[in-house]
Amino acid sequence: MRDATLRDVARLAGVSARTVSNVVNGYARVSERTREKVERALVELRYRPNVLARNLARGRSGQIAVVVPYLDTPYFAELLQAIIPRARERGYNVLIDQTDGDAVHERELISRGARAFLFDGMIFSPLGLAQEDLVEIDPDLPLVILGERVSNGVFDHVGIDDVEASRAATAHLIGLGRRRIAAIGDQPYPTGEAAQLRTRGFRQAHADAGLPVDESLIIPTPRFNRADGSGAMRALLSRAEPPDAVFCYSDLVALGALHTALESGLRVPEDLALIGYDDIEEGRYANPAISTVSPDKVAIAATAVDRLLTRIGSAEPVPGIEVRAEHRLIPRESTIGRTPPVS
Amino acid sequence: MRDATLRDVARLAGVSARTVSNVVNGYARVSERTREKVERALVELRYRPNVLARNLARGRSGQIAVVVPYLDTPYFAELLQAIIPRARERGYNVLIDQTDGDAVHERELISRGARAFLFDGMIFSPLGLAQEDLVEIDPDLPLVILGERVSNGVFDHVGIDDVEASRAATAHLIGLGRRRIAAIGDQPYPTGEAAQLRTRGFRQAHADAGLPVDESLIIPTPRFNRADGSGAMRALLSRAEPPDAVFCYSDLVALGALHTALESGLRVPEDLALIGYDDIEEGRYANPAISTVSPDKVAIAATAVDRLLTRIGSAEPVPGIEVRAEHRLIPRESTIGRTPPVS
Repeated sequence: MRDATLRDVARLAGVSARTVSNVVNGYARVSERTREKVERALVELRYRPNVLARNLARGRSGQIAVVVPYLDTPYFAELLQAIIPRARERGYNVLIDQTDGDAVHERELISRGARAFLFDGMIFSPLGLAQEDLVEIDPDLPLVILGERVSNGVFDHVGIDDVEASRAATAHLIGLGRRRIAAIGDQPYPTGEAAQLRTRGFRQAHADAGLPVDESLIIPTPRFNRADGSGAMRALLSRAEPPDAVFCYSDLVALGALHTALESGLRVPEDLALIGYDDIEEGRYANPAISTVSPDKVAIAATAVDRLLTRIGSAEPVPGIEVRAEHRLIPRESTIGRTPPVS
Repeated sequence: MRDATLRDVARLAGVSARTVSNVVNGYARVSERTREKVERALVELRYRPNVLARNLARGRSGQIAVVVPYLDTPYFAELLQAIIPRARERGYNVLIDQTDGDAVHERELISRGARAFLFDGMIFSPLGLAQEDLVEIDPDLPLVILGERVSNGVFDHVGIDDVEASRAATAHLIGLGRRRIAAIGDQPYPTGEAAQLRTRGFRQAHADAGLPVDESLIIPTPRFNRADGSGAMRALLSRAEPPDAVFCYSDLVALGALHTALESGLRVPEDLALIGYDDIEEGRYANPAISTVSPDKVAIAATAVDRLLTRIGSAEPVPGIEVRAEHRLIPRESTIGRTPPVS
């Protein structure tokens, strides 16, 4: 069957093709009665608007891209879960891509390239690209960056205060009387900004308490995942003097470290207190439940979408801004032990 | 700055616009020397091909949609993690959407609608729509269904043998000497096909062993998530005679149930053996690690992408087929206890 055209719909509804077009595009005022007639005809003829042609005419795709390193990282999955409904409410579909942290793929996405016109703007969490690479961003691409890079005045950046959050997490361990505190997740310059900010907060908490940092207790990991957390914990436990607490740079790292610590017969938190970062649901259901730093993911998602749509909707270039979302420390069993149930 | 056109590129390269078009689209034979000249000019002028216009001319978008109920469900996240590289290898971008299991949204996606032309085909895991609703699918939409619906001869379906997998999981518990076995996750007709197949396997294992099923130990849950698993376990533990084993219809359900069982002071597996379904990474790192049914996710992803591209590439309608991927039972600590480390 040949696809129905606007003209076919107009003929059946007894109106002009222009009127049908107005109804389909929601452009002009159409009386309720006319709208109903047209909608009935659209359904009857199974009219399928050619979205691609329409977008082309408008110079808009009605899609935004959200680009994250890994979709199976719960932090990103939970963030996407908040971004999608927000974008949909505001009339945008979300195109999701994962980069595996590959710098070449990331660079391709932010430069003028073959993907142009497929999306109107992008929310991007870089991993392979360093801060200094972000100068290559196409200035015509409406862009909001998530994570630990900072705005260079061209794009917006939404994140939390990582240094302060990490300082608070470490201070929590110090406050519990722990003195041999390890850090799992440090990463080298230039792409490891997220990790370096957390290490800075870790050091700051020690300085605030007048405690020295044992540099050998700062364990780098290539990624923030369970396997890396587990491997780092194995290395720590093989030492003559293992730590009595550990600050993990993500909940996944903490969950891997926890698994290995328990497997080795340690009691958590009695022998080893453990705190993570991200507040993913998995940490709340872990045994013991893990203490964490909770970024306000709903606020991050809403701010990112709203700023992006502002940029997309503006005819003039919009200067890039820094937005800091809230975070809070959530102590759970992995640092403070089992609390009696509230009755 | 005005965007460069094909004509600008042609002028700079000293060739015809048709030749530039051939290079950009990779259509016709162009000599190596000419290609290089054109490519230099493309770079110099920062030429940005209008993908939307090109797709329109070709009648193809170069995108496939993957639609899942929830992105923050690790099973779907892990499946997407396998689908995306497979599609990319074969030259397709992936557009991801989540439906929250909403039947209206799901119906809109599979019927002729506003999204037409945005993607060339769809891999779809329905939740709100029942098997009988799938007759409404636009027969012109290349479609592969994942999960527990079955092909009706129009679309392809890729899944595992859920009844057999559930039978094996339950038989594993029976084989360990457990006799009061609960099932968590049953769901009512018409949309709960996944759950109903698992309940069928649960019953079959009992019948095979000549054991009666205690109907009061089959606990329905609205979703397959941690909170539902936790709630169901609370209900089971409040009974006069709690179960000595439980088959959970997903690993997330098992992780919620495990958390509540341990919180109540039970030992797993001594007091309660527990098996899940899906083999998500989280279960491998749980404490204790949870036994599970492992569907071959890499094979499911590859088969789904390959079948979809076959459908997209075919001028004739392709009859729908059923594809069964492999699965295997993985016993871990939550049923067989701690095994001594291999030395």
